[in-house]
Amino acid sequence: MLFQVEMNVRIPTAADPAAIDVLKAAEKARCQELMVAGAWRHIWRVAGRYANISIFDVADPGELHELLSTLPLFPFMEINVTALCRHPSSVRNDDR
Amino acid sequence: MLFQVEMNVRIPTAADPAAIDVLKAAEKARCQELMVAGAWRHIWRVAGRYANISIFDVADPGELHELLSTLPLFPFMEINVTALCRHPSSVRNDDR
Amino acid sequence: MLFQVEMNVRIPTAADPAAIDVLKAAEKARCQELMVAGAWRHIWRVAGRYANISIFDVADPGELHELLSTLPLFPFMEINVTALCRHPSSVRNDDR
Amino acid sequence: MLFQVEMNVRIPTAADPAAIDVLKAAEKARCQELMVAGAWRHIWRVAGRYANISIFDVADPGELHELLSTLPLFPFMEINVTALCRHPSSVRNDDR
Amino acid sequence: MLFQVEMNVRIPTAADPAAIDVLKAAEKARCQELMVAGAWRHIWRVAGRYANISIFDVADPGELHELLSTLPLFPFMEINVTALCRHPSSVRNDDR
Amino acid sequence: MLFQVEMNVRIPTAADPAAIDVLKAAEKARCQELMVAGAWRHIWRVAGRYANISIFDVADPGELHELLSTLPLFPFMEINVTALCRHPSSVRNDDR
Amino acid sequence: MLFQVEMNVRIPTAADPAAIDVLKAAEKARCQELMVAGAWRHIWRVAGRYANISIFDVADPGELHELLSTLPLFPFMEINVTALCRHPSSVRNDDR
Amino acid sequence: MLFQVEMNVRIPTAADPAAIDVLKAAEKARCQELMVAGAWRHIWRVAGRYANISIFDVADPGELHELLSTLPLFPFMEINVTALCRHPSSVRNDDR
Amino acid sequence: MLFQVEMNVRIPTAADPAAIDVLKAAEKARCQELMVAGAWRHIWRVAGRYANISIFDVADPGELHELLSTLPLFPFMEINVTALCRHPSSVRNDDR
Amino acid sequence: MLFQVEMNVRIPTAADPAAIDVLKAAEKARCQELMVAGAWRHIWRVAGRYANISIFDVADPGELHELLSTLPLFPFMEINVTALCRHPSSVRNDDR
Repeated sequence: MLFQVEMNVRIPTAADPAAIDVLKAAEKARCQELMVAGAWRHIWRVAGRYANISIFDVADPGELHELLSTLPLFPFMEINVTALCRHPSSVRNDDR
Repeated sequence: MLFQVEMNVRIPTAADPAAIDVLKAAEKARCQELMVAGAWRHIWRVAGRYANISIFDVADPGELHELLSTLPLFPFMEINVTALCRHPSSVRNDDR
Repeated sequence: MLFQVEMNVRIPTAADPAAIDVLKAAEKARCQELMVAGAWRHIWRVAGRYANISIFDVADPGELHELLSTLPLFPFMEINVTALCRHPSSVRNDDR
Repeated sequence: MLFQVEMNVRIPTAADPAAIDVLKAAEKARCQELMVAGAWRHIWRVAGRYANISIFDVADPGELHELLSTLPLFPFMEINVTALCRHPSSVRNDDR
Repeated sequence: MLFQVEMNVRIPTAADPAAIDVLKAAEKARCQELMVAGAWRHIWRVAGRYANISIFDVADPGELHELLSTLPLFPFMEINVTALCRHPSSVRNDDR
Repeated sequence: MLFQVEMNVRIPTAADPAAIDVLKAAEKARCQELMVAGAWRHIWRVAGRYANISIFDVADPGELHELLSTLPLFPFMEINVTALCRHPSSVRNDDR
Repeated sequence: MLFQVEMNVRIPTAADPAAIDVLKAAEKARCQELMVAGAWRHIWRVAGRYANISIFDVADPGELHELLSTLPLFPFMEINVTALCRHPSSVRNDDR
Repeated sequence: MLFQVEMNVRIPTAADPAAIDVLKAAEKARCQELMVAGAWRHIWRVAGRYANISIFDVADPGELHELLSTLPLFPFMEINVTALCRHPSSVRNDDR
Repeated sequence: MLFQVEMNVRIPTAADPAAIDVLKAAEKARCQELMVAGAWRHIWRVAGRYANISIFDVADPGELHELLSTLPLFPFMEINVTALCRHPSSVRNDDR
Repeated sequence: MLFQVEMNVRIPTAADPAAIDVLKAAEKARCQELMVAGAWRHIWRVAGRYANISIFDVADPGELHELLSTLPLFPFMEINVTALCRHPSSVRNDDR
């Protein structure tokens, strides 16, 4: 089932840049791994912000929480989740 | 280019149901026309609300406004637009 | 799976009381039908407000939307949905 | 009597991980102790957030405050309390 | 037990003044009846607004809801309830 | 004249516990001194939060500010003040 | 004593213009009467809005409420009151 | 001097379309008259909303209010004004 | 021309008290200098908060920004500016 | 195409002034470079705040994000982006 997830990343300006770079690389690798696996279906950058809007396709909210809470940058994220369902006007088979 | 559009529909409870049904049918037809044409790329229902989250692929903000402001239910909608761009972590070619 | 649902009911003060009473009776009957069936697991009144906090147990967000959007009082409700999952500290088997 | 309690946990990113782990373990033990005793009736994780939605069954607001303010993670929590009462539509004996 | 209750009254400007006057008189009589009985312990007008801040002393949230939801002006009120408990610094015996 | 004052206390988690304990003891002593003197008429704990709702009876806003801004915990408080006046429905002589 | 009062006027677009004009004239006359009397010390228009920011000099919040709640346009106003006191930096004798 | 002005237009869905069309035409004519005169320096449509963001160049806030409050659609607008000044980084002579 | 300015001062609790005292003294001196000069026309303390509401009389928004941004406590302030103009009901010559 | 961008700059009060001055100088140089190139079409200071309102003219949201996220002060900015399009009332050729 589908969830829209908004992730706003807030890195403290006092954080160690090298440590953050390591986390960012791990975050990117994990994101791509989940995209290939199909659970992280879409990700878009919000223009002008260190934030993204994503679509997840998971078995249930428990799997969604497991995926999000283990992301390397999770401790720096403010996350909002919206449960989605198929819209009766959609003509796409994958919009569910 | 891509925009996320949130549409919240607020039909006054005093509205004439027959007139609203005509508008809803026209809205659905127009939505499907734009989905087939590719401009309205995705639409999902927000669970529990008369609202949707959509992804539009348009030439510029002017085309987006033209499409949205001529929707049959536009006078009853509260709309929020978010400009999106490709996320460096995305592995999908169509996430742009 | 579980969702917390907050329903705030706003009846226009100009509405016909008899018509509203019919809707309220139908709402109550439908609620109890769904509680017996297990989909509407809990409902509590928010003290001092025409509002409730409920827990739904449904197969997916689509079923949740189907149940909520066909409630007799749905046109008068403002609804917020929160996706829940099992908490690692819970000792109850039914908190999922 | 019943109260819904939302707890949002905000651990400073600069906190000592070992000290926090100790607090988390104590928090979990205290939660389970209160669940077994019946005062902390339900707890659910909010999907995607370090937060929970709980139902407490206590003698009065004073007991609720005593329980919440002595939780190990209380200094890191933002808490909202909502007073609940029995809903006339409920068919469950324990929804009060 | 004690609850702070904020009541904001919003009379539609199109309402019939005579009918509203009847409701206001009934509201005042009911308020004074509850004050004498001890359940509505305090009421103050918020300066400059058609609103009040009150303290209720009731057996539980159910009684509070019963009292508030049957007030003559309840359909025109926006109400917020805050659960209170004894403050350790208080020197008054009745602040509980 | 009467003012409702909401005080939300936010102690930084990095603060020195011993120094804070000294401030808390001084705060309590000052509160009780003002309650005995009659200026701090009521104080209630907000259930589940490090916050209180109080009623002050002072000569004017200047005296209110003098009392609040010299509280030992003032630098850690977020304060909201609401000017109150006698409600025409009140039956109590001291609700003013 | 001094209070800042913000008044936002919201005339329903369906209101009878002639009736509103009568109210506006009465409002202006009452305002000027109170300014001459000294209770309504200042009034400024907020640029671009049907709103004003005013300073009242009254004996107590009760007098302030009496003055505001009997204004001809009061039923159409959303009002916010802020209690003011002398600022230690002020060099003006009348800023109190 | 310059002010940024956001205008959100909210036409009641029950309004007479012919009367609104007359107002819209008058609004457009007045806007263009003020643009030619130089007081309404810029106007852009907010994509997806019946709203605009404008830059006004006026002698003072009084002139701004006079221009805005006499617009044909003013009774249907929610307006926010932001005072602007020259930015030290600007290389344009007309950004003031 | 006139602007209402709200200044909320937020001194970090970890700041050096002696350094802050120096800034406060400089702030007071600068405020009084500007009051004597006529640019800072009024200042009032908001009761219960480290905040003030002021009226400035300046040549344009640029002068306002110059005055505010060079205040000694500016780095610790959250400031909101509202453009004012003469109200047609005012009977005072200096309310402009 | 055009976007309005609001940038609010929040420099931590504990930051090293010399390091911030270097960033500010780099920010100004980059801004002027982009203004000369035409991508950063307008910038205005918001009176009284360390903030600006700007108009960008870019090829798409991706270019906008590239420009904004590489600004020297980007880590200290809170940014809001609004997609603009030509307003039918505009008489200027460059308002698009």
